[in-house]
Amino acid sequence: MSDTLKKAIPDTVSLDLENAALVIIDQTLLPNETVMLSLKSQNEIWEAIKSLRVRGAPAIGVAAAIGYYLAARELSYGVENDILTDGSNYLIKLTEAKEYLASSRPTAVNLFWALDRMNSVTLDHIGSKISDVVDALCREAIKIRDEDISSCRAMGEYALSLIKDGDTILTHCNAGQLATVRYGTALSPIHIGREKGMNFKVFCDETRPLLQGARLSAYELVCDGVDTTVICDNMASQVMRNGWIDAIFVGADRIAANGDACNKIGTSGLAVLAAHYGVPFYVIAPLSTIDFNCESGKDVPIEQRNSNEITEMWYEKPMAPKGAKAYNPAFDYAENELITAIIPDYGIARAPYTESLAALRENAKNKKD
Amino acid sequence: MSDTLKKAIPDTVSLDLENAALVIIDQTLLPNETVMLSLKSQNEIWEAIKSLRVRGAPAIGVAAAIGYYLAARELSYGVENDILTDGSNYLIKLTEAKEYLASSRPTAVNLFWALDRMNSVTLDHIGSKISDVVDALCREAIKIRDEDISSCRAMGEYALSLIKDGDTILTHCNAGQLATVRYGTALSPIHIGREKGMNFKVFCDETRPLLQGARLSAYELVCDGVDTTVICDNMASQVMRNGWIDAIFVGADRIAANGDACNKIGTSGLAVLAAHYGVPFYVIAPLSTIDFNCESGKDVPIEQRNSNEITEMWYEKPMAPKGAKAYNPAFDYAENELITAIIPDYGIARAPYTESLAALRENAKNKKD
Repeated sequence: MSDTLKKAIPDTVSLDLENAALVIIDQTLLPNETVMLSLKSQNEIWEAIKSLRVRGAPAIGVAAAIGYYLAARELSYGVENDILTDGSNYLIKLTEAKEYLASSRPTAVNLFWALDRMNSVTLDHIGSKISDVVDALCREAIKIRDEDISSCRAMGEYALSLIKDGDTILTHCNAGQLATVRYGTALSPIHIGREKGMNFKVFCDETRPLLQGARLSAYELVCDGVDTTVICDNMASQVMRNGWIDAIFVGADRIAANGDACNKIGTSGLAVLAAHYGVPFYVIAPLSTIDFNCESGKDVPIEQRNSNEITEMWYEKPMAPKGAKAYNPAFDYAENELITAIIPDYGIARAPYTESLAALRENAKNKKD
Repeated sequence: MSDTLKKAIPDTVSLDLENAALVIIDQTLLPNETVMLSLKSQNEIWEAIKSLRVRGAPAIGVAAAIGYYLAARELSYGVENDILTDGSNYLIKLTEAKEYLASSRPTAVNLFWALDRMNSVTLDHIGSKISDVVDALCREAIKIRDEDISSCRAMGEYALSLIKDGDTILTHCNAGQLATVRYGTALSPIHIGREKGMNFKVFCDETRPLLQGARLSAYELVCDGVDTTVICDNMASQVMRNGWIDAIFVGADRIAANGDACNKIGTSGLAVLAAHYGVPFYVIAPLSTIDFNCESGKDVPIEQRNSNEITEMWYEKPMAPKGAKAYNPAFDYAENELITAIIPDYGIARAPYTESLAALRENAKNKKD
C-alpha cells in the first residue's frame, strides 16, 4: 500500500520513525480545530487512548501497536546489544508497558488483540539481540497499520462497485477514516471514489447522543471535498421519502452468523426505513467483525451507557427534568432480512447470509494460505 | 368544565381577573425552573408570545384572546359609560392593540383566529356601553379557554379508551398540556387517566433539534407522577423491538382529508417503525386540525428552519464542521395507511379516513347545531 496516495486528511494514526513518535489527529477537538499530536511517552499515549483523542476499534489497535513498539525502542537504549532472555529486566519492563497500554480502554478488543500480536513477536525473539527485537517490532507495527489500510481499501473498492458517480449516500455514526488509519469502513467507498475523481453527496445522521455523525463523519467528508449535509436522526425518513438517497452505508461493531448487524444505536430503525422506502441498505465491515459463534443479533449483549449523555452532556443546563429517567443503549442491530448486502474485505455477501458469510470466510482462508 | 379538577401543574395559560393579568408558565425556563409570569401590559404579553414563553398553537390562541380582553379593559378606564361607536378613539386604540398582538408570531394561525373572534365580539357590540363590551370580551376569552380545555378533555377520553391501566406509551415532541391550556392533545389521555388514578409509563423521544420531548413532555409527565423515560429519537426502534411499547400517541399540526398526519419531524419514521413492529400508532388532534381542502400529506408545505438549530443551538461550540450543510425540515407526515386511528375531539376515526374523518365532521356539525 503506497503512502503517496492523495488523501484529504492525514492518516488518523501514524508512526513518525525519525522522532520516535505516535502521531494522531486529536479527535476531541473536532470538528472545530484540526490538531496533530506527536506522542512520545507511554503516559501521553495512554492518555490519548483513554480520553478518546484516538478512537474507533481499528485506530486504537494500530495506536497501541505503535505505542508498544515505541516502548520497546525506548527501553532498548543502552541494552541494544544484549540478548533478550526470559525473565530479563528488559522483558519485564516491556511487559509492564504492555499492561499499562492495555489498561487505557478496558473493553477495547482491538487494543488487546494488537498488543498480544506485538507481544508474540517479542516472545518469538527470545535469544535474539534486543536491537533485532526492536526492528522486528517496528516491522510488525507497520504491518498492522498496513493491513488496516489494505482491509479498508478492499471494502471500499467492493462497496464502490455498488454505487455510481454522482450518487447520494446516507450514513450513520462515524465508520470513516477517523475510526481507522485511512479510508474507514462505511465511508471507504466515498474516499476511494474521491481518489478516482468521483463526486458524491452524503447525508450524515448527527447520531445522538454523542454526535459522531455531525462531528466526525461530516468533518472527514468536508475535508475530502464531499457535498455533505448533516441531519438530525429523526430526519432520515423524510430525506428518503424525498427520493434523495441512492444507498445507505453503515459500519458494524459485530455481525452475527445470520447477518444481523450490530452497530451504533439507530441502525435498526434506519434499516426498517430503508426497506419501507426501497433504498438499498449496505453494511460495510471487515471479516474480523463477523462473530460466527454468535447465531443472531439477539445474542449480542447491548452496552447501556450513562443517561447524562442524553440529558446533560452537550448542554449548559440539564435538558430533561429531574425525576425523568433516560434509556441509553449504545447499539442495536439491523435485521438480516433488511440488509441488501454485507461487504467485508473479501467480497460482497448477499442473503442468505449464513451461507454467504461462511463462504467469504473460506475465501479469505484460501487467500491467506 | 370545572376548574377544581386535580391537575399536576397549573394551567399553561390563565386569566387572573382580580389583578387583570395573563398568567403563564415561562416555558423558556423549563425543565429546570418552574416560574409563573403575571403579564399585565401589552408589551409583556407580546414579548411572551414572541420569545416562546408561551407556545403551542392552542395556548397561543388563548393567550392572545386574554391579551385582547386585557387591552379592552385597560383602554376602557375613564370611558366605561361611553357608547362604542364606529371610528371612536376606543375602537381605534383596541384595533391597534389587536394588530400589535397579531404581530408577535406572524405565522400562528390560532393567534389570528382568536384575535379575529375577539374582534367580532367587539364589532357586534357597536352601540353598546363600553363596560358591557369589556364584559362580553371577558366572557369570550374565558369561553375560548374553556373550549380548549373541553376539546382536549374529549380527545383524552376517547384516546384513553384505546389503552389500559399500566400501559407504556411512546410519544414524540410536545403535544401536551404545555401546548394547550390543560391536558394537551397526544398527552391528554395520560393526564386524564392520572385523574382517574391510573398509572402509565411514557417514553419521550427527545425530539431533535429543539428537544421539546426532553424539555417539555418529560417535564409535564414527571410533574403528573408518570414514570417517564427520555430517549434519543434514534432509540425508538430498539424500545419497540424490546416489546416495551403498547401504543404510540402523537399530535398533529395539520391532517389531510385522506388522513395523512403532518406533525413534528420524525413522525413519519415513527409510523413506519410502529407498523414494522406491530405497535398501534394513534394521532390525537382536534377536528380543527383537519384540512379537508388538503387532499394528502404531499400537499402540506414543509417549513424549513435555520440549520444552526442542528449544528449550534444547544452547544458551546459548533457541532458540525464549517462547510457542512444542514437540512432542517420542521415537519413531516405519517402516511395514513400506517395510522391505526385518528382521534379528534368528536370520536375515533379509522381507515378509510377520507370517509371516517368526513363523517366525524358531520357529527360535530350536528352536535354544534
